[in-house]
Amino acid sequence: MRAYEYILHKRQGGALTGEEVKSFIRGYVAGEIADYQMAAMCMAIFFRGMEEGELLAWTEAMLYSGETYDLSGLPGVKVDKHSTGGVGDKLSLALAPWVASLGVVVPMVSGRGLGHTGGTLDKLESIEGFCVGLSKQRFMEILGKHGLCMVGQSETLAPADKKLYALRDVTATVDCVPLIASSIMSKKLAEGADALVLDVKVGGGAFMKTEAQARTLAQTLIAIGEGMGKPTVALLSRMDAPLGRAIGNALEVEEALEMLQGRGPADAMALTRRLAVEMLLLAGRAPEVAAAEKLLEEALSSGRAWACFVDVVRAQGGNVKLLENPKLLPKARRRKLLHAPRAGYICRQEALALGQAAVALGAGRRRVEDTIDVAVGLVVLCKVGEWLEEGQPWLEIHYNEEGRLEEAMRHLAQALEVREEPPPPPALVVGRMDKTCLGLMG
Amino acid sequence: MRAYEYILHKRQGGALTGEEVKSFIRGYVAGEIADYQMAAMCMAIFFRGMEEGELLAWTEAMLYSGETYDLSGLPGVKVDKHSTGGVGDKLSLALAPWVASLGVVVPMVSGRGLGHTGGTLDKLESIEGFCVGLSKQRFMEILGKHGLCMVGQSETLAPADKKLYALRDVTATVDCVPLIASSIMSKKLAEGADALVLDVKVGGGAFMKTEAQARTLAQTLIAIGEGMGKPTVALLSRMDAPLGRAIGNALEVEEALEMLQGRGPADAMALTRRLAVEMLLLAGRAPEVAAAEKLLEEALSSGRAWACFVDVVRAQGGNVKLLENPKLLPKARRRKLLHAPRAGYICRQEALALGQAAVALGAGRRRVEDTIDVAVGLVVLCKVGEWLEEGQPWLEIHYNEEGRLEEAMRHLAQALEVREEPPPPPALVVGRMDKTCLGLMG
Repeated sequence: MRAYEYILHKRQGGALTGEEVKSFIRGYVAGEIADYQMAAMCMAIFFRGMEEGELLAWTEAMLYSGETYDLSGLPGVKVDKHSTGGVGDKLSLALAPWVASLGVVVPMVSGRGLGHTGGTLDKLESIEGFCVGLSKQRFMEILGKHGLCMVGQSETLAPADKKLYALRDVTATVDCVPLIASSIMSKKLAEGADALVLDVKVGGGAFMKTEAQARTLAQTLIAIGEGMGKPTVALLSRMDAPLGRAIGNALEVEEALEMLQGRGPADAMALTRRLAVEMLLLAGRAPEVAAAEKLLEEALSSGRAWACFVDVVRAQGGNVKLLENPKLLPKARRRKLLHAPRAGYICRQEALALGQAAVALGAGRRRVEDTIDVAVGLVVLCKVGEWLEEGQPWLEIHYNEEGRLEEAMRHLAQALEVREEPPPPPALVVGRMDKTCLGLMG
Repeated sequence: MRAYEYILHKRQGGALTGEEVKSFIRGYVAGEIADYQMAAMCMAIFFRGMEEGELLAWTEAMLYSGETYDLSGLPGVKVDKHSTGGVGDKLSLALAPWVASLGVVVPMVSGRGLGHTGGTLDKLESIEGFCVGLSKQRFMEILGKHGLCMVGQSETLAPADKKLYALRDVTATVDCVPLIASSIMSKKLAEGADALVLDVKVGGGAFMKTEAQARTLAQTLIAIGEGMGKPTVALLSRMDAPLGRAIGNALEVEEALEMLQGRGPADAMALTRRLAVEMLLLAGRAPEVAAAEKLLEEALSSGRAWACFVDVVRAQGGNVKLLENPKLLPKARRRKLLHAPRAGYICRQEALALGQAAVALGAGRRRVEDTIDVAVGLVVLCKVGEWLEEGQPWLEIHYNEEGRLEEAMRHLAQALEVREEPPPPPALVVGRMDKTCLGLMG
């Protein structure tokens, strides 16, 4: 009856001890605690929250529920980045090789897209042959040789999180800060990172709709990271409009390749640069921001960042000819342009609606078991703040099926707003948080 | 994804429509909605509650999840009684035949004991041969002939409640007023009662520890009953000390037999009489309290109440020789007396501790699957308010196994408190509520 008592205690607003939390998670993974008991526990946690000690124990129990990667044999501070999910967010594809090309080891374990947000793994898999499911040994080899390896969460890495995530997904307990935070951190810490940079999205296209929510999540993530001795920094970035121009897997790979050649859209480049600076500082590769920025420019202009990506794609089985010639990436059979209904400045281009339209086309998943079409997606031709003439195209839809186009069009109907007055310049990074925020907690 | 959305809506504090509630319960019974989803829903209901319309729909969906008994062919207003569970509460055994002997049809569907409270079915089964699992047809026959039949909740009666109760029992969602109330009422309404008298217990030995909690539960039960057109009255009675003297199945049957001969303990007789009066008034068998009391005295002194019980026990297969000669009821092999450690008035005799001690002896269940020993139990030799000499026995323990005695003794260690000053007379019925309380709701 211990499971029962733990649920009851949490329901009544009590805190579990570290040992109780760990035995609950272990029991769940071992099948001694049933799904229905964990579902009740998660819902109680939604209402009662977790204290810092509970949260650390919860994360640790998930982290050690499976294999962990020991990267201490590799040189320097290993740094990874995690984004809480946005629309058109292909930043990791450019960021990881950019930073790795400067000698920082980046062990990157990513996820798949779900709902209106995309996933790094799906994007990588639009490169023919690219394998995201590597053995631990192969992961360590590639990481050692190239300073970067990009894989998915294997069956053996944080299996408790895998099992729990699937359960939360069907019991309406996904959007619960301590459960989100422990899920993210258990995976990131299991992969062996020494330090973490978090891109916490906020806005209509993000899971966190308000800055207050995003700050709470960032603070919780930082508390876990620092509590486990892993320096953690979070940028809060707006997710109101898509990042960059491309939405959809192969389209985003193409844009990431442009970014690695220094030709990416300004917003995507700026945020990637900010994240890269934080990673370099955490890794001790640069003493301060200006020096980090200088290194980054050199890595880009010298082609080192590009070369690192090509090397890693080759090492992971990907066809590198596609990188040299992105026209060979999977392409949708049909295209359709959307035109401005009237002239004006674009003051709103709704990330959520565009993300949902991309899912409708087949670029994303509504359910975990859905298959995706890597070729389809959207290309934003004009960004927020730009002037549109009446009838000028603002969006290019890449699609394969008429039926899906129709559904996507419904999502797009209200996605654009134009006005006569130019909007204020769109905000991007709206906050930076590190361990100094923890004094403010609880 | 409907189940998901319903859980989310409830979690966010919204109310479900009657149709949504019904489809959720139906889906659960059909296995389309998983246990873990219902567990999350129940926990969300614990925190968010249910509005009156939701609660009625929830109860109705459970009520119609299986067979219902149509008693309209039997004469008069069919009245049943339900107790929320106490220690030494054998009142139904005496109450039902007492009222039925006055021409009121009493369809009684009871439960088994769980935790420190006993259950009517277990008590009845200590009468050799007594069968609580009758077919619908046989139930109707006996009810038609004797005005009383006492059975358990069959597999076909409110199966949704059966399934849900088992789930709540392992997910710490038992003590949630709307879920308790809908569970009770769905069973009671499925059995075909036209009106209900509720004995809502309050105090240390009851599920509801405070009068405020008990009033909320009573009000919720009355709201459901009246909402379904079934007049419902609740008495609030204290459950601090055991009711009567006997705790344990066969011991309680023996005491119930004394009650039916007018020789029962004062507290048990008084509360049974109050409940019986309410049943007679609801059935329209008496115009007011005094007339009802007069009828009850006649039924007792004439032996009609006793005869009704004997007839029903015979009809349900029970060995009526045991009723004439209760010494033949199952008896424990061993007895032990507990003695007063010092002289004084008994001011506390803790129902919860005595109930737990009885469970430890084997008289009750810790889990649904436990088997019970109908012979064991406790007999209270002196009640609250009585004077005890030092060394005078106050409790008789009936047991079969030394190991179990030891555990029972631990529960009993702090169960008794004596003082030099006599305590105030113990309260019994502390409130009466009917539909007039509903104006106070919401």
